Amino acid sequence: MLKLYSYFRSSAAFRVRIALELKGLPFEYIPVHLLRDGGQQFSEAYTQLNANALVPTLLDGDHALSQSLAIVEYLDETHPEPPLLPGTALDRAYVRALSQAIACDIHPLNNLRVLKYLKHTLGVAEEAKDAWYKHWVELGLTSLNTTLEREGKAGRFCFGDTPTLADICLVPQVFNAQRFQIDVARFPVIARVFEACMAQSAFQKAEPKAQPDAE
Amino acid sequence: MLKLYSYFRSSAAFRVRIALELKGLPFEYIPVHLLRDGGQQFSEAYTQLNANALVPTLLDGDHALSQSLAIVEYLDETHPEPPLLPGTALDRAYVRALSQAIACDIHPLNNLRVLKYLKHTLGVAEEAKDAWYKHWVELGLTSLNTTLEREGKAGRFCFGDTPTLADICLVPQVFNAQRFQIDVARFPVIARVFEACMAQSAFQKAEPKAQPDAE
Repeated sequence: MLKLYSYFRSSAAFRVRIALELKGLPFEYIPVHLLRDGGQQFSEAYTQLNANALVPTLLDGDHALSQSLAIVEYLDETHPEPPLLPGTALDRAYVRALSQAIACDIHPLNNLRVLKYLKHTLGVAEEAKDAWYKHWVELGLTSLNTTLEREGKAGRFCFGDTPTLADICLVPQVFNAQRFQIDVARFPVIARVFEACMAQSAFQKAEPKAQPDAE
Repeated sequence: MLKLYSYFRSSAAFRVRIALELKGLPFEYIPVHLLRDGGQQFSEAYTQLNANALVPTLLDGDHALSQSLAIVEYLDETHPEPPLLPGTALDRAYVRALSQAIACDIHPLNNLRVLKYLKHTLGVAEEAKDAWYKHWVELGLTSLNTTLEREGKAGRFCFGDTPTLADICLVPQVFNAQRFQIDVARFPVIARVFEACMAQSAFQKAEPKAQPDAE
């Protein structure tokens, strides 16, 4: 059985959980607590699987896979139904670009390790740290919403009427935004797609509070 | 003909330039100066093509594609030779993970817009800003070198003996590291692969100093 090393609140792990649920793939959940024991992701055992010391890691037999988007594409290639990417190269490029606008341009700036560096190494005050967080989320969601509106390819989901990699990235990012009291209603297409996703059991099963390590 | 909106020093644009050269695809180079005119990427004309106001954008006919990794995969799907991803799902996941370890975990933290925010909004001193830059590059390259060593899949390049998406991401990151006086020799597999890449004309043609807007 697949094994997922996850932390309930990790956006990147959340993405992989959604993909596993959408594919209907059973998996063993192995919690890695990012704050306990000085960060369990830094343990010898974990860094043997994942040299980046980041969650998630997916174990498929002996193979340890890292990086959430790479893992989701792997699951999509090895378990094609339902597809998480569209059927043409142009549409795939579009969905991947939406996904990367979140995974490369928003989320990396708001990661736990980055917030810790701002606070502890740069001595940034709590208020300025929160402003940093909001700045990148609002900037990213604004341009994402513009793209979704302008391209007119969203249906119930970011692309058409079935969930894709883009929705898999969007939903955890919206959870993060909400945790920091960002009003997602300001981004109407995003808000609508988020609601459609959260009406689906796959997204519900994957959300932080439904995980065995939820606090 | 393909049109590439690029800035000579942008890592993300550099990635796409390498892919275009490896594929032997002719393209028109359209410079977008990230510092001039308050940042030409923020112009009305450019943000109509790319709502994120980031380079690169690839124009294929009427289609504006954004996000460097999505663009490279698009080029690989539409022009399969020479392939930039391996032949099996597991190997593709590995090469994508190496690529994302750079494109999601290192580069976003060292982007121009982030360095500007640190300096102008958070008032971080020049020295602390440089330390931030080095911190994320050294952390990322250390774990990347560990992965490359441990997995034993590197040949002349990050995966085997032909360039892949991973090398396309690695080379621009090494250029950045060198600009900030990081000694890449500390990462022996990376240093060796970088040298093999830079011996190839595709990588040479794509490097910053070879671009029409180089300064």
